[in-house]
Amino acid sequence: MSDGDGGQPVSVRWVGAADGHLELLDQTRLPGEIAWVTCRDVSTVIEAIHSLRVRGAPAIGIAGGYGVVVAANEARQRGLEGEPAIAHLLTAAEAIAAARPTAVNLRWAVERVLRSRSGRAAGVEPLSELTARLFRAAEEIHAEDRRLCTAIGRHGADVLPEGDVLTHCNTGALATGGDGTALAVITTAWADGRRFRVWADETRPLFQGARLTAWELVQRGIPVTVLCDSAAGHLLATGRIGSCIVGADRITAGGDTANKIGTYGLAVLAAAHGVPFYVAAPSSTFDLSIVDGAEIPIEHRGAAEVTSPWGRAIAPPAAEAFNPAFDVTPARLIRGIITEKGVIAPVTRAEVARVLGRA
Amino acid sequence: MSDGDGGQPVSVRWVGAADGHLELLDQTRLPGEIAWVTCRDVSTVIEAIHSLRVRGAPAIGIAGGYGVVVAANEARQRGLEGEPAIAHLLTAAEAIAAARPTAVNLRWAVERVLRSRSGRAAGVEPLSELTARLFRAAEEIHAEDRRLCTAIGRHGADVLPEGDVLTHCNTGALATGGDGTALAVITTAWADGRRFRVWADETRPLFQGARLTAWELVQRGIPVTVLCDSAAGHLLATGRIGSCIVGADRITAGGDTANKIGTYGLAVLAAAHGVPFYVAAPSSTFDLSIVDGAEIPIEHRGAAEVTSPWGRAIAPPAAEAFNPAFDVTPARLIRGIITEKGVIAPVTRAEVARVLGRA
Repeated sequence: MSDGDGGQPVSVRWVGAADGHLELLDQTRLPGEIAWVTCRDVSTVIEAIHSLRVRGAPAIGIAGGYGVVVAANEARQRGLEGEPAIAHLLTAAEAIAAARPTAVNLRWAVERVLRSRSGRAAGVEPLSELTARLFRAAEEIHAEDRRLCTAIGRHGADVLPEGDVLTHCNTGALATGGDGTALAVITTAWADGRRFRVWADETRPLFQGARLTAWELVQRGIPVTVLCDSAAGHLLATGRIGSCIVGADRITAGGDTANKIGTYGLAVLAAAHGVPFYVAAPSSTFDLSIVDGAEIPIEHRGAAEVTSPWGRAIAPPAAEAFNPAFDVTPARLIRGIITEKGVIAPVTRAEVARVLGRA
Repeated sequence: MSDGDGGQPVSVRWVGAADGHLELLDQTRLPGEIAWVTCRDVSTVIEAIHSLRVRGAPAIGIAGGYGVVVAANEARQRGLEGEPAIAHLLTAAEAIAAARPTAVNLRWAVERVLRSRSGRAAGVEPLSELTARLFRAAEEIHAEDRRLCTAIGRHGADVLPEGDVLTHCNTGALATGGDGTALAVITTAWADGRRFRVWADETRPLFQGARLTAWELVQRGIPVTVLCDSAAGHLLATGRIGSCIVGADRITAGGDTANKIGTYGLAVLAAAHGVPFYVAAPSSTFDLSIVDGAEIPIEHRGAAEVTSPWGRAIAPPAAEAFNPAFDVTPARLIRGIITEKGVIAPVTRAEVARVLGRA
């Protein structure tokens, strides 16, 4: 675990120049162990994304962008040039983009890096030049995400209501290239001198709230209390929560938001208690090709995440398991969507278009 | 694990005559292991109740009733008679009744067994006669609970809506002296020839839904799917759930219901989707001394249940934990309360009084 610019943890890093390799902090082993996955081939990148060794929509976007550079280096190692090299690159990029179907940033980043190829016909540009170009594009996404996080944190802190904050899953430095999305709002408000407690849903099945969010907040000296996801209703009923804030994996043109499973239930509960519910995400999270959240594909993951936490079987083998990784929160339950371009509120199609249209 | 009359699992059993001992199926070790806790002294009974080796409001009531008999036998083993024996009995009974503060059946059962003492002054009745009398009262509660479960199952099956059923925690044979409460409704409807799938919330922090409910349903050949508690919102949004049904640990005169943490959130979600939400519980679960659910004491349990499932630390040590064992669902969110005396619907103070007033 090395530190980033702001003392925050780093989850994705590139080692060396364009012909170097990608390293991913293995988040499945946190907080007990700090281990890095070395990615010198595309299959390792895909496995790391699919197994959630790297997770968080912005972070997997960054990893996916660098993954295209890994694919170019893989082509070089295989002695490919010209058309065959490009064919390998495109096939690998598609496989990386498909590793997780719900998060839109992944495909967005992969396609953006691919677009950085020159307009020259395949084979005219030497592979080493192409690789350098892809690498610069991937680095740019990474650097840009740092700036986006800072802007999201600032915009969000300016609207964050008084009182304790309830969050779900992990949306911090581990999930992004910078300070996070929803968690950047929290840490920025704290840096502003505001004082509150953060309540972190543990976030079954993979416990990202307990393992990662609580860990990041402890590192920053911000008081944090972990709770089972099912205790959020009772917590809200006690009246001590001033706001809920979460991240996003895909947002439609109408503001419907796909995020970690459990987000939707939390939004319904927040509405029932009159507690404002915010989403924080970079504008790359928007998929303007769809309006209705029902059109977002929901990734269903394996039964073992539910029935065998830490490899210990808790349900009888004959029981089936239901394991959607995401759910969709309709725009009407969201008080505001905090982006690097400002806060979308009220969450309507017109306001989404207006804020995202800013330079 | 021995079988009861209907082939259903047994969680509480008495071995021998009045001077025998209590055995409790250790539910913390299910479904991986079938182990019994032998209770020959009061401290073992209290530890088993407190540690949820025996759980489920009716089952802990039955265990508490037998626990008074264990206390009487403990007095005999210590050579006590007369006033000192009675003093020991009363102290032990109070400690048992206080082992879990939310479930009202426990205190109800302990007090009912104590009331079976003869009207004669302490010491006039020999301890062996007193013990036999207490034992008959405890057995009566046990036998009665079997009949209550059957009646609850019948009343509930008659009103259970079409479609799949979503349940929370465990309310089956393991939780009672018979077929269960909410789960008896499900198994009775199944025995009537109705066909559906049961969706079982895993029920963090102790996974009673995944470990116990799924196990009971598999044993009975009823299709069951386990889900993380946080996936219930998405499941309800899919439209495939016809009803939700849960048990109860305490119900006020107005119908406000304390039950396993997560019940309240589920009830809010069910209401948001127009899915009827039922509670099933024997009339002994009612605490008519209070009307408002806010008056029900909520047991808070240790942090380790949240932060160290199966002994594996998932949160950093510096993080705090919030672990209420129960929450309160207001009457307005409950379509009906199914008791052995019939179904209370609508759930109003008048209807509670009317149905409970039946012979």
